[in-house]
Amino acid sequence: MSATNELIIWTYDWVPEGPRGFVRDLRLRWACEEAGLRYEVRTIPFDDRETNHLAQQPFGQVPFLRDDGLEIFESGACLLHLARKSDKLMPRDPVGEANTSQWTIAALNSIEMVTVPWWFLKISGAENEGITGWMSTRLEQLERVLSEQEWLVAGRFTVADLLMADVLRVSKVRSFGDRPATEAYVTRVTDRPSFKKARADQVAHFEAGDQMRASASARNSTHSLKE
Amino acid sequence: MSATNELIIWTYDWVPEGPRGFVRDLRLRWACEEAGLRYEVRTIPFDDRETNHLAQQPFGQVPFLRDDGLEIFESGACLLHLARKSDKLMPRDPVGEANTSQWTIAALNSIEMVTVPWWFLKISGAENEGITGWMSTRLEQLERVLSEQEWLVAGRFTVADLLMADVLRVSKVRSFGDRPATEAYVTRVTDRPSFKKARADQVAHFEAGDQMRASASARNSTHSLKE
Repeated sequence: MSATNELIIWTYDWVPEGPRGFVRDLRLRWACEEAGLRYEVRTIPFDDRETNHLAQQPFGQVPFLRDDGLEIFESGACLLHLARKSDKLMPRDPVGEANTSQWTIAALNSIEMVTVPWWFLKISGAENEGITGWMSTRLEQLERVLSEQEWLVAGRFTVADLLMADVLRVSKVRSFGDRPATEAYVTRVTDRPSFKKARADQVAHFEAGDQMRASASARNSTHSLKE
Repeated sequence: MSATNELIIWTYDWVPEGPRGFVRDLRLRWACEEAGLRYEVRTIPFDDRETNHLAQQPFGQVPFLRDDGLEIFESGACLLHLARKSDKLMPRDPVGEANTSQWTIAALNSIEMVTVPWWFLKISGAENEGITGWMSTRLEQLERVLSEQEWLVAGRFTVADLLMADVLRVSKVRSFGDRPATEAYVTRVTDRPSFKKARADQVAHFEAGDQMRASASARNSTHSLKE
C-alpha cells in the first residue's frame, strides 16, 4: 500500500450506458486494486472530448494517469508503469518482466488491433470477411496458448492477463466462435474481486454523472424560463 | 557497443517483393543500429508461417528477439527491451522513460490499430467510411502534435519516433490527406543513416532468399527428372 495518495486516474465525467463497465480507466482502477495502490479518480468532460482536452491527451481519450510528477496516457503504458510499482502485477525477474511486457503488447497490437476494428465494422453492419478471418486466426492461436496454460506468464496472474481479459471480455468478441479455453480464462480473470470492484466503481461513477447532468439540465431549464 | 554477440533477431527466410523493406524485423535492426548494439539475424521459413513456428511465436509472426537467456516476441515489446539497453533509444530519467513508453504504445494502439485495418480494407477494395474517418481524426490529432514539436519525446529522437515513423511511412498511409508536419517528420526520421542501413540490409536479406529458393527449386527439378 502506497503511503501517499499520489496516483490520479483521469476519466470522463459521464458516458452513455453502452460503454459503462468498458471505459479504459477500468484497466487502471483494476491494476491499482490488484496491487493495493491508493488512487483518486478525477474527471474531464465527455462532451466534445475529441478536442476539449488535447493539452492533456493528444487524442482526446481517457484514461490518463498522474503519478506525482509524471503524466502518462495510453492505458497500456499506464499499466506497464503501474506494473513496475508492484510485483503483484509483474514478476521482478528479467524473464518474467520480458514475458509480461510481450503479452501486454500482444494484447494491444496482435489481439486488440483486430478485435476493435472487427467490432466497429460489426456494429456498423459492414462486417468484412478478411478482417473476420484475420480475427478468427488470431483468436484460434490464442485459444491454443490458453489450452495449455492458465495464465499468460509464469503460471501466475500478471497485468498482461488483466489487459488480455479486458480485450477479450467485449461481448461480441467473447461470443465469437467456440473457444472453451479462452472462455474459461476470461471467466477466471474477471472473477477476481479486484475486477469486480473496479467495474462496480466505474459504473457507479458514470451513474453519478447521470445525476450531475440531470441537475445541470434542470438548472439550464430554470435559467431559460427566467430569460 | 555490446562486448558479446548475444542479440539474435529472427525473421523469415524470404518474403514476396511487396513487403520487403517493411517486415517488422526492420524495427529491431534499426534500433540496434541506432544504439550500436551488435546483432545477428536468423531465419525461420516463410511458408506455412501461421502454423510452422508457433512454439517460438504463438501468432506465427516475426520478429522475435533472443537476448542471452531471454526470448521476446512482439516488435513493440522487443523495442522497449532494447530501449532499456541504451539511452540513445530512451532517456534514463523517469519522465523521459514514461513519455517514451506512452508514445511507443500510442504508435501501436492509437495509430497502428487504425492504419493497419484501414490499409487492409483499402487494398481489399472494401474501404469503410467509419474506419477512414477514425484514421483521419487520429492522423489530424497527430499532425497537431508534430506541428509543435520535432520529436515525440523530450526534444530528441527516441525509440517512439522509430516506431511511429515506421507505422506512418507505409505508402498509402503516408499519402493520405495533406499533413505537412507529419510528412516532414517521417522524412526526418527515415533520413537517419541507421534506418537506411537497416532497410538496405533487410532488402538484401530477402533478395538472398530469392536465390536460395531458386536453387531449391532447381534441385527439386533435377530430382524430378531423375525419378
